[in-house]
Amino acid sequence: MLTAADLAGRIGAELVGDGGLEVAEGSGLEEAEPGTVSFYANKRYRRYLEGTRASAVIVDATVAAELGERPYARLVHPNPYGAFARALALLHPETRPAPGIDPRAIVEDGAQIDETATVSAMCYVSAGARIGPRTVILPHAFIGEDVQIGADCFLQAGAIVREGCILGDRVRFQPRVTIGADGFGYALDTGDDGKPLHRKVPQVGIVRIEDDVEIGAGACIDRATTGETVVGRGTKIDNLVQVGHNVTIGELTILCGQTGIAGSAVIGNGVVLAGQAGVVGHLTVGDGVTMAAKSGIVGDVEPGAVIAGYPAIPHKVWLRAMAALKELPGLLKRVRRIERRLSDHDGDE
Amino acid sequence: MLTAADLAGRIGAELVGDGGLEVAEGSGLEEAEPGTVSFYANKRYRRYLEGTRASAVIVDATVAAELGERPYARLVHPNPYGAFARALALLHPETRPAPGIDPRAIVEDGAQIDETATVSAMCYVSAGARIGPRTVILPHAFIGEDVQIGADCFLQAGAIVREGCILGDRVRFQPRVTIGADGFGYALDTGDDGKPLHRKVPQVGIVRIEDDVEIGAGACIDRATTGETVVGRGTKIDNLVQVGHNVTIGELTILCGQTGIAGSAVIGNGVVLAGQAGVVGHLTVGDGVTMAAKSGIVGDVEPGAVIAGYPAIPHKVWLRAMAALKELPGLLKRVRRIERRLSDHDGDE
Amino acid sequence: MLTAADLAGRIGAELVGDGGLEVAEGSGLEEAEPGTVSFYANKRYRRYLEGTRASAVIVDATVAAELGERPYARLVHPNPYGAFARALALLHPETRPAPGIDPRAIVEDGAQIDETATVSAMCYVSAGARIGPRTVILPHAFIGEDVQIGADCFLQAGAIVREGCILGDRVRFQPRVTIGADGFGYALDTGDDGKPLHRKVPQVGIVRIEDDVEIGAGACIDRATTGETVVGRGTKIDNLVQVGHNVTIGELTILCGQTGIAGSAVIGNGVVLAGQAGVVGHLTVGDGVTMAAKSGIVGDVEPGAVIAGYPAIPHKVWLRAMAALKELPGLLKRVRRIERRLSDHDGDE
Repeated sequence: MLTAADLAGRIGAELVGDGGLEVAEGSGLEEAEPGTVSFYANKRYRRYLEGTRASAVIVDATVAAELGERPYARLVHPNPYGAFARALALLHPETRPAPGIDPRAIVEDGAQIDETATVSAMCYVSAGARIGPRTVILPHAFIGEDVQIGADCFLQAGAIVREGCILGDRVRFQPRVTIGADGFGYALDTGDDGKPLHRKVPQVGIVRIEDDVEIGAGACIDRATTGETVVGRGTKIDNLVQVGHNVTIGELTILCGQTGIAGSAVIGNGVVLAGQAGVVGHLTVGDGVTMAAKSGIVGDVEPGAVIAGYPAIPHKVWLRAMAALKELPGLLKRVRRIERRLSDHDGDE
Repeated sequence: MLTAADLAGRIGAELVGDGGLEVAEGSGLEEAEPGTVSFYANKRYRRYLEGTRASAVIVDATVAAELGERPYARLVHPNPYGAFARALALLHPETRPAPGIDPRAIVEDGAQIDETATVSAMCYVSAGARIGPRTVILPHAFIGEDVQIGADCFLQAGAIVREGCILGDRVRFQPRVTIGADGFGYALDTGDDGKPLHRKVPQVGIVRIEDDVEIGAGACIDRATTGETVVGRGTKIDNLVQVGHNVTIGELTILCGQTGIAGSAVIGNGVVLAGQAGVVGHLTVGDGVTMAAKSGIVGDVEPGAVIAGYPAIPHKVWLRAMAALKELPGLLKRVRRIERRLSDHDGDE
Repeated sequence: MLTAADLAGRIGAELVGDGGLEVAEGSGLEEAEPGTVSFYANKRYRRYLEGTRASAVIVDATVAAELGERPYARLVHPNPYGAFARALALLHPETRPAPGIDPRAIVEDGAQIDETATVSAMCYVSAGARIGPRTVILPHAFIGEDVQIGADCFLQAGAIVREGCILGDRVRFQPRVTIGADGFGYALDTGDDGKPLHRKVPQVGIVRIEDDVEIGAGACIDRATTGETVVGRGTKIDNLVQVGHNVTIGELTILCGQTGIAGSAVIGNGVVLAGQAGVVGHLTVGDGVTMAAKSGIVGDVEPGAVIAGYPAIPHKVWLRAMAALKELPGLLKRVRRIERRLSDHDGDE
């Protein structure tokens, strides 16, 4: 429980209105009850700003000026969503299980677990694995041989990290992340019996996850054929994303749900791939590129491009093309009519 | 083993033909052997109605009339597929493991397990969790703190339900369902070091799954940022589906394989999303909408709409547009020819 | 450690250059260090052939001739990628855990485990399951009742194979494969309370995986309603792929990441489905078909077709149509101009 004034101070916001109102938790604008702090950042929810029962709302200066007097405190901040993130972290501090190796976990000889780390029941940690300070691993994880996990990581239940892969510091896994599965590599070849087969290309590289990466539930990052598959510092990956072998992903990139990146692609820094987007293998996506939902590419993409569709084209061009698409059948008829008319015209001459 | 006459009576069908034929199991029309019951509901398989070796086939009245005499019993029912479902349930009753907590499971102090529930070996049930009567949890499940699971649920192996989430009665999970992973929420912000970062927005809400919901293998339903992500009564979700934070899904809705629903979307009752469809965040899909496979939307959808494509348009319009698409390159040439001709014509005048 | 000459001999390549150079591991051309063997098969990486530090490079005869003298040994082979696969297998032999049942695994009475098989800690093997010679099952697997697994299989951590399903010999699973989840089958019906419901169709069939199949991380193959879902010999399935109930997949077929195949579809031999492609239920895809990334079909596909788009059309037609798409808005304007002009012209007459 904090007063609105306290909260404003701790998240770096300016208080407007009654600073004595108390807030105990965060909530959305629409379903807010007294005692909660909310935020406003998406115009779609503008109507809820009127009737919200929240005791405090984080808004930017422009909105604060428009709002005028309100029964709730306004916490004015240039980045309301970012400030809300800070408020939630203050009001809902993360609980952390006690450090130590649960006796119902299996830790093979030769694994090194920092004494401040938590290894939960029913985890399996292989020989040669190293787990850093304050890192938490929830139940049912499988940590392969010689895996390295840094400090202050938090792996939700069911993590799988196969042999030799490396995680930096402050890496977060949602449940059921898979790191280091074999890449999908086969060479069409002939077997000893003379028949065709897809010969498996051994996948002997690793995955390296840099600091401050978060990976979503069910996502898979494949190990490299040789060398490394890399996910750069501060990149965030959503649920059920697939990253192929030898992919390199830069820093502060966002991969939304169900995106797929095929082998050996290079994704830059600050890239955003919206949901269900896809990148074909061996391509390069420049820094700062935004790919719309469901888009896909078949060639390299210049830095800063905003693209959509498959094969992707500039987003604005795509929007116009898709709007025109439903007129295409009518257009075909119209052109046929013109052609007929011109041919009649010829007859006239 | 039932006679065709018995089976007809128990599934509410009318018997036509030899009621004394015995059936022991269900089968498809094509691969049916004597002693099996099959059904006919999809015209694609009409040819198999002729030569099927099934002892009984469930058909509707129109088909029964067309068929005339056959070596197999006809079980006439207005809803053959529904009647087949009942027949299978009679002939292949579900086996249920014995109630009780397997001594090789871990149930933390303070969890409440109904004495008629089954908690299998290698499950982990956290403190404060409550599991209702006759609910079955197969091996390798992780049930978080304060999770509530109702009566008569059946969770196949490897279920993960994170802290605080709520399941109603008769909920079914296929293997490896993930409930309550953190939503994908980050605010672009500046770190203490002055550098840009994606600040994690704590996800402190829950997921609530209502009665009679079934969820497919590998599917993920994310917890709300604040409040609840809701899956409504009787809704069925297929494998590898992703449902984002704060999504609300109505009753009796169908989400086919690999569909994705981004955060805060509202999906109505009786909606069907075909495979690999996608819904962008914050949108509303009205009751009874059908979205074709691979379709996606970028705006709200009116109740009852049948749509396809991305951005989705009415299904019939989409079909025509896609059929016309392959004529587009030719059309471009034809218009160029007309333009050239008209410009020559100008010269003539 | 092998000499280039030894390696050439063992992979069936012809040596050109210094056969005494030693190689200890495989690597990509770009990041290669002395002591490694690399390969060249994709023109995109031609530039790395110049400066590579590899001690040996596998190339085809044409490239070898172009290269002339080089500081590295050339191992000349008609199939450089296939030869590289062999080289990796020689230099990086797969390690195999010791045979036997780990005392921390659970094997229920009545399961038959070959004495040369490996069942790792925290696996659960149900009654009636049979596991063949030299098969390896890593931790946290769940093997259901009466499952049959052949010889020389390798199941990475977290495999789930539900009751009754059958795996041939030399089957490989990447982590977290799910075999035999219920198919997604519901009949719209009326409950005892007179209200509509989606009645579950019991899924009482099985999955049969033939010899030499490999399945990727997080992929799901659903059991048949009745009968079998089949994955044919030598077929390779990538991560997060969904295969519905009663699907039949032929031999030597490739399903890339995140593809989805709906129920009862029939996929031929030697088919390639690129990433995120989809096949609607009940359709037939002929032998040797290639479906481009993100493509989908709504009708049967003839053997040998190369298709793209959704609904898919011949790949070349699709490429031209998509290239033309961005000109569509301009085309609409041009046709309007022509129409206006012709109508003015009418006025003139």
